[in-house]
Order: sequence, then structure tokens, then C-alpha cells
Amino acid sequence: MAKKYSIGVDYGTQSGRAVLVDVSNGEIIAQSTKMYTHGVMDEFLPDGTKLEPDWAIEHPADYIEVLEITIPAILKESGVNPEDVIGMAIDFTACTMLPVDQNGVPLCFREELKGVPHAWLKLWKHHAAQYEANQLNEIAQERGEDFLARYGGKISSEWMFPKIMQILDEAPEIYDMADRFMEATDWVTMQLTGAEARNSCTAGYKALWHKKKGYPSKEFFKALNPKLENVVEEKLSTNILPQGAKAGELTAEMAAKTGLLEGTAVAVANVDAHVAVPAVGITGPNKMLMIIGTSTCDIMCSEVEKEVPGMCGVVEDGVLPGFYGYEAGQSCVGDHFEWFVKNCVPATYYDEAKEKGISVYKLLGQKAEKLKIGESGLVALDWWNGNRSVLVDVDLTGMMLGMTLTTKAEEMYRALIEATAFGKNIIIEAFEESGVPVDELYACGGIAKKDPMMMQIYADVTNKEIFIGESDQAPALGSAMFGAVAAGAAKGGYDSIFDAAEVMGKVEERTYKPIPENVEAYKKLYAEFKILHDYFGKGANDVMKRLKKIKAEARK
Amino acid sequence: MAKKYSIGVDYGTQSGRAVLVDVSNGEIIAQSTKMYTHGVMDEFLPDGTKLEPDWAIEHPADYIEVLEITIPAILKESGVNPEDVIGMAIDFTACTMLPVDQNGVPLCFREELKGVPHAWLKLWKHHAAQYEANQLNEIAQERGEDFLARYGGKISSEWMFPKIMQILDEAPEIYDMADRFMEATDWVTMQLTGAEARNSCTAGYKALWHKKKGYPSKEFFKALNPKLENVVEEKLSTNILPQGAKAGELTAEMAAKTGLLEGTAVAVANVDAHVAVPAVGITGPNKMLMIIGTSTCDIMCSEVEKEVPGMCGVVEDGVLPGFYGYEAGQSCVGDHFEWFVKNCVPATYYDEAKEKGISVYKLLGQKAEKLKIGESGLVALDWWNGNRSVLVDVDLTGMMLGMTLTTKAEEMYRALIEATAFGKNIIIEAFEESGVPVDELYACGGIAKKDPMMMQIYADVTNKEIFIGESDQAPALGSAMFGAVAAGAAKGGYDSIFDAAEVMGKVEERTYKPIPENVEAYKKLYAEFKILHDYFGKGANDVMKRLKKIKAEARK
Repeated sequence: MAKKYSIGVDYGTQSGRAVLVDVSNGEIIAQSTKMYTHGVMDEFLPDGTKLEPDWAIEHPADYIEVLEITIPAILKESGVNPEDVIGMAIDFTACTMLPVDQNGVPLCFREELKGVPHAWLKLWKHHAAQYEANQLNEIAQERGEDFLARYGGKISSEWMFPKIMQILDEAPEIYDMADRFMEATDWVTMQLTGAEARNSCTAGYKALWHKKKGYPSKEFFKALNPKLENVVEEKLSTNILPQGAKAGELTAEMAAKTGLLEGTAVAVANVDAHVAVPAVGITGPNKMLMIIGTSTCDIMCSEVEKEVPGMCGVVEDGVLPGFYGYEAGQSCVGDHFEWFVKNCVPATYYDEAKEKGISVYKLLGQKAEKLKIGESGLVALDWWNGNRSVLVDVDLTGMMLGMTLTTKAEEMYRALIEATAFGKNIIIEAFEESGVPVDELYACGGIAKKDPMMMQIYADVTNKEIFIGESDQAPALGSAMFGAVAAGAAKGGYDSIFDAAEVMGKVEERTYKPIPENVEAYKKLYAEFKILHDYFGKGANDVMKRLKKIKAEARK
Repeated sequence: MAKKYSIGVDYGTQSGRAVLVDVSNGEIIAQSTKMYTHGVMDEFLPDGTKLEPDWAIEHPADYIEVLEITIPAILKESGVNPEDVIGMAIDFTACTMLPVDQNGVPLCFREELKGVPHAWLKLWKHHAAQYEANQLNEIAQERGEDFLARYGGKISSEWMFPKIMQILDEAPEIYDMADRFMEATDWVTMQLTGAEARNSCTAGYKALWHKKKGYPSKEFFKALNPKLENVVEEKLSTNILPQGAKAGELTAEMAAKTGLLEGTAVAVANVDAHVAVPAVGITGPNKMLMIIGTSTCDIMCSEVEKEVPGMCGVVEDGVLPGFYGYEAGQSCVGDHFEWFVKNCVPATYYDEAKEKGISVYKLLGQKAEKLKIGESGLVALDWWNGNRSVLVDVDLTGMMLGMTLTTKAEEMYRALIEATAFGKNIIIEAFEESGVPVDELYACGGIAKKDPMMMQIYADVTNKEIFIGESDQAPALGSAMFGAVAAGAAKGGYDSIFDAAEVMGKVEERTYKPIPENVEAYKKLYAEFKILHDYFGKGANDVMKRLKKIKAEARK
């Protein structure tokens, strides 16, 4: 039998990437990336309509373009016969959601709605639904809703229902016009197969769905807003398929656009973080995988179900069957560094990088690496994009402290990296204090592979060994693995994700071990971080929130 | 009689500037600036010797070079006959001090001492004597020394005695080797006249000298360190001349170097801030002059003597005869902006500025001007260089808060400007709460004339009208005025600084009036600033100091 292949498509914040994977060994044979044509829109819609603060919009057509460009590219590059591509799957940022009509067409595609912000697709980091999230949390608390505990006690404004509520509050006509609200990952999968097949991962982690209990009750939704009483039946779906299931098969239309065969198996969609766990070969509990990208998502399987303060969710079978899948995370990691390089690095550094023929990131890294721990005198709070765990508060903002007239860009850059490591340690402590052990750290994503300084800082701050996923495309690889599972063993794939993970998932030989003297040095800085974390994050001084209100009023 | 002229030389942090002034109207006929060849040395000595954190050194030879280059330049440019230059004077940053031998030669000029940091000249913003300042303050408090109250309750590490104590602590051989310690302003004046003539302004504001009580007692100095018992007699001088006195006459040697006539009257040296008061025409009380440069110095005359928390000093006749002269200030103003432009402004802004043919400062200003108050969501503490008033603590460091991923350079730039305005308001409140009225604000210095946005922000934050000194070289003009007073009316000058101020001092017609809606908007932001100011500045969280300690240890 000829070698078999599977395709995984990973949709990130800025771009989509397709990989073609050899099913027999997990090797990526070809890959292709497409930057989204419209990018992230946080100030204006394509027609120039100004957005309010904290909005983040994308263009759904950009996602289809990714398929049309990257899949033909990897087929061409590899020379693989489309007949030997047995399956495919996609993964996505979440909750990234959009309103569609009865034919699944996004409302923002309509000429008359293209200037209406709420008709558009809301990216995961759309943070303008905080008012609604607060309302939802208040009412859920008042009613003693037990789902709250599964989500660390607070529902994030990034998730499905606050985003739906914001549409209903601010643009009720769009709410009415919407036949349903979909996760982008399910919407793109529907474009591939021609039929809706919602996945349990986004339903469980982002839309309050529970394997045994289903969605929250009609009474709860009614308490939020009488119009929401039947939101699940009217605007969502109760037909939720488990991860690893087959969503359907490629339509003739999409086969023509991608160059794959009609009928190719398509797996139920997934989330970019969760899908990566099998890709680094994790098949058991207490191994926390950090998927480090623009943000960091922490995924861990455990044998125990506990309530961890500020975790993003615990979903039974939500990552690997047979385990409780925990999610936590940090809203701003790579985004920090990109913001910093774009907004704060002086011209002279660009010149120096150019001279040396390296990137500005690389130059900053080289300079930052030479600094001793604590030498900069800086400490930062990594909240440029709010705090996802354990404070669960998007209205928190960034802070840096300790600057003097001799402070240099590389010192601030390193302080930002350290801030994300301290934030990680806050999360790990919350798990351990709640009785969920964290034994080992795994990391994947481009930054994990490309930035040994950062990984060593993480090892030193957390005092844990860190294993690095071998593939620099763990989510896409994970998606391809699920594609192979959708195809099944009979067609040359696998019958379970565990079988697939054993063969296709891998870590690097190199690991990062904590260096005792660094661990000691970071303890002091972490103590300072924690005082500031609690002071600004736990209500002693809500200056960040007050400034956000002043900001919103000033922009009116 | 031919027109008469006077020369003022203003020594700033980065450069020295000479002006040639028409004594009959205060008009600057010619001016010339020389950047210090060695600049501020805060990392290495000229021979590569590494400096500890918080050091700031300059090269005394650079100051003489200023005279040799700028005075011939202004004579040449103006075509004025040196015979018609009746007097000159200089002003300086303070306390900027150096150890010299019995011939007045700086110890750092000796070949064998050029790698010894303590042999060098310590710039005003040398901040490494904090340990000694703390010691001095503790002992003064224990002993109930009454001079403390004249200086806001705390002696700054920037001043003469902590700097001397640091030399004694860390390099006792340099202490012994030094015949005396001099203010740079007196040392340069001594180079001009060939004889030492110390000024009352630096003695009063920086060296604890009092017109009636003299220096602190021998017992006090002995309590600091037995070797310091006779420090005044052994290493300083008790021969202090009042402002407006004549220091001497130009030597033949310096006449040859500058192109002036031997015997030209030279006034007693002054400090760059204090000397500016008559230059803006202030001849009475309750008018606070902000001399805005790398740092800001606030000088005000008052009819009452009060203890104002954290003021830098109150010296009888210290600014204008017959008044109590108050000094307060902010350690980091222009320095903030320079640091920001050098370290934090992205390459794209440099490109944009170049395209538009304007400076990066100008571009940032244009962008920042468009922002509404509070729109950035940012607030900063202006402590990049410590806090001079009212906290008097050089171990405080900068802070910025409220950053998000859409924060732009101009927003941070404006937040820094606002932080300095808030810091100013803290000072004004301290005066008013202590019973020293502040009726009007005056501003001088390049920034005051060139940055209308900043001046409007100051007017709005302080809710006071601001008058701008007409000359963009107020300190140099003030020095020239004192030069004319040193020459005296008989030689075409003046017999008192009041006479000189009436003719030669001026403000612009344009003033900045508070805009009521802006005043209201800034009240909210100021409230946030004040909470953070007190939290980080008054002991609730000494994180900045702990980080500075960690930093110092890391650099060992």
C-alpha cells in the first residue's frame, strides 16, 4: 500500500497554515502559510467604519482563502497524489464566532451589513463584551449555577455567550437576523463538508456545554434576557460531536478549490491549543502543555476533577478520552513581544539588526540573554491583553515598573518575557494549591522552539523541567492526526488518537532543566510580581479598570 | 558711550551655552553651544573602567572647552568689541562637585587617577550616595538638627555632603588626597578669575550653609564620621560670597583663551535654576518659576518662611535679596523625553519624521496633541530619575500602567508629559498646604517655549495661568544680568539685580490659561496618579527600592 498522508490546517490570530503529514511517522512533508488578507481589525472595518475600544474583528473570507492557497501549495510542493491524502482536520483560535444566515453565509458578506460591526466575526481577543460577561457572572452567581465552578468561578468576556449578549444588547437587529452563531472552527469545517457538525471542545470550553448536563438551563438564559430563553435551540445547536469523530467528507466544490479528492474524510473541528496535546506525545495526566503563540494556552489532563481558581475550564474527555481536560492560559505572550518590537524598539536597533543580518527579535534576544537576573531592576505585569487565568479579567492592563534613564530596550523586552513566566507560575501554583498536580511542563509553538532564553527563564521561574514538542507546528500536526483518525485504520489511518499519538507525536531530545541559582534569584523577583499582581488584580487598587472607563468615555 | 554687553554662560547636563547680551534691553545678540566632548558618563570612565549603577560622571576639561569655543564664537558672530563686554558670569547644574588639589587642579587630571571613579567629577544626578544620604538623615534626625526643616526634612543624595561621604567611605585615599571639594560652578569661576570665591546659592541650597548659622556643627560632622569633624575647614571654605557680588576679574590666561579683556568683571557663580528668576522679570513673591530642562527646578520667592514637606531648601536671600527663596523640583523632565525618544520610539516614526522633515519630538508631539485627555488609558509615575520633591527619594523608579496591545508611542509619550505635570501639582499642593501661596506659574527653558501642548497640560493640571519667559535662554540671560551687576552702573551695568531685572527680564505676550473642561478631566487622572504616588512613594510597597537592591547585587 502507498504511503498515506493527512492534512492539518491551523488557524492562528494572524495567519492560517496547512501541513501535509506522513501518517506513518508524523513527519511534516510540506507546509504553507497564508497571512490573512485583512489581518486583525481593531480600529476600523474594511469600509472605514471606526470600531469602539477593545474590539477585534476578522474577515471570514480570509479563512477560505487560506484553504484555497495553502492546500494546493502543499500538494504541489510534496508531489503527493491527492488519492493518498486520507483525511484532514482544522483547528482554530476560540472563541472566535460569527453570525450566519440559514445557509451558513456570514451576515457580514451582505453588502448592506458590511458597515455594521456586529455583523462581523469576533476574534477570540475581542474584549468589548466585558459588561455582558459581568452581567452573566453576576446572575449565574446569584442563581448558584453550578457550571461556574467548572470555569474557575468566572466566565470570560472572550467566550460565546457574552459575545452573543453584546450583539443582542447593541445590535438586536443583527441578533434577530442571525440564523445561528457559530464558532469559526465549526463554520470553516462546514464549508469543507457542506454540513454542520459542531465540536465538543469549543462547546465545552467556550459555550458552557457539559457532556452529561448539556448547556445551562433555559431559566438561566431567560434571567439574562427574556429573548435568550431559547438561545441554544434558536441560535446554536445541541448536536455536539466528540473530538476524534468524523464531521463529514469533502464536498465537490471544496475538492475543486483545494485539489483534494471529493469524499476525503474531515474530522470534527478542534481548538488550536487542545489539538496539540497528542502532537507532543502526551497520552497521560499531570503533564501541562503550554502552547505558546500570540497568547499561551495551558492544557493538562488529570485523573482528578477539582475546582481551580480562575482556570478556563475543566471538560471531561475534553482533551483526551478518559481524562479531565483542564485549560488555563495567558492572554498575551507573543503579542507582547510583537507589540514591543513594533512600538518600543528604537531605530538604532533596527539598523544594528540589519547590519548583523538578523531579526530585531533575535537582536533583542541576544542582548537580553546577557543580562543577569534582576540586573534591569524591572518588573512587569503581563496584562497588555487582560488576564485570562487566574484573575479572569480583561479590564486589567499592562504595567511596568523600575525604569531609570539607563533602562534599555532589551531590559524591557526581558522584563516582558519574565512577566509571562511569572504569570505562568501563578497558574501552576493555583493548580497545585487546588490539588491538581503539575509534574512536567511541555511547550510547543514557534517561540518554544526558537527562544531558548525564554524557555530557560520559564524552567527557572517554575522550577520544572520543560520538554519541547519536536514539531514546530504542533497544532497543525495534531489536526492532521485527528484527520488520520477520522479516516480510520482501515483506510491507512488510526482508530484512536492514542494510537496516532504513539506513532506521530514527539518531543525534542533537548530539555530545559531549572538551574538552582537562577531558581533562587527568580524567587525574589517573583515575590515582587505577586505583590503587584494581587494589588492591581484583586481589588486593592482598581486603577486599571477606572482608567479603562475614562478611556472609553474619552473616545465617545 | 558705546553699547555695553555682558556674557552669561549656562552649563547644562549635556552642553554649555554662552550668550552675549545687550545690557540696555536684555536682548541676546549672539549665542553658541558646545556639547560636552565626553558627555554624561554613567556606564564607563573614559579609560573603560566600569561604573557602578547610579553613577553619573563628567569631565571637568569639557567645561573649560566650552569657554574656549563658545566665547570666541559669540564675539565673532556679533562683531562686538571685547572692550564693550563689561562683565560675565556662569551658572551650573548643582550639586555638581569635584575633588581638587591645592592648586585647584582636579584629581582626575592626574594620569595615575584617571581610572579611579571617585577622583572624577560627580554630576548632580549621580545617585550612588543614597546610603550616605540615609546615614546623614538618620543621624541628623537623631540629633534633632534644625537644618533638616529648612530642606523639607530630608537631605538628598545629590547634595554635597552625601557625595563627600561616599568618597570617604569608598575611596578614603581620594578623600585624603583632595585639598578641597568644590562645586563645579565655583571651580569654573575660579578658572576664570584665578581665585576661589564660593557662592552662597550652592552653599545654601546644596551644602547646608545658612547665612546666619553657617554650616552644621563640628559635632554633627563628627557624628557622621570622626574624620569629617573639620570637613568645612579642611575641605570646603567658610568664605561665602552673596549672589550679585563680584568674584574677581578675568585672568590674562583666560582672556587669551576667550578673546575677552583681562580684568573683565566676573560675578560670583550661580545655579542654573535660581539665576533664571530675574531673567523672566520676577521681582516679587508667590510667582513660581519652573526652569524646565533635563530636570525641572522650581524657584519661588516668598514673604513667609515655612517648612514645606520635601522642598529642596529655603534660603534667606537665596534667590532675590529680601525674600525667602524656596527651591523644589523634579529630577526627570526633558530627560524622560530624551530617554523615550532614544529607547522607545519605533523605527517607523523616525522614517515618518524624516519624510515630513521634522524631528521625532515634533512628530510625537503632533500625534500626542490629537489625543483626548484620558484616551490612552495610561498613567505614569515620573520617577525615572528618582523623586526630588516631595518624596525626596532617589531610589524611586519609573512606572507606567494601562498599556494594551493598541497602545502607541505617542500615548506613552503624552503619559510621560502628564506624569511630570501631575508631579508638579503634587509640589504646588505641598506649598499651599504649608501656607506658602503659589499664585502664578512662570516657565522657561527650551521645552517651555517649544512645546505648547506640554504648557497647556501644565496649566490644565495645575489650574493656574502660566507665563513663559521671553528668552529661550533664561539662565544664561540671568547670568549675563549678574555679570552686568558685577560690573556695576559706573561701568554701564547695574548696581542691583532688581534694576537689571526691570530692564533686561521679560515674558512672552502669550500665556497659557487653564481650560475648565480640561481641568475637570485631569482631576480624575490626577486622583489616580496620587494614589499610585503614595502607594509606591510612601512605604506601602517599597518594591522599587527592593528591585534597586536586587539590581545592585546582580551587577556586582
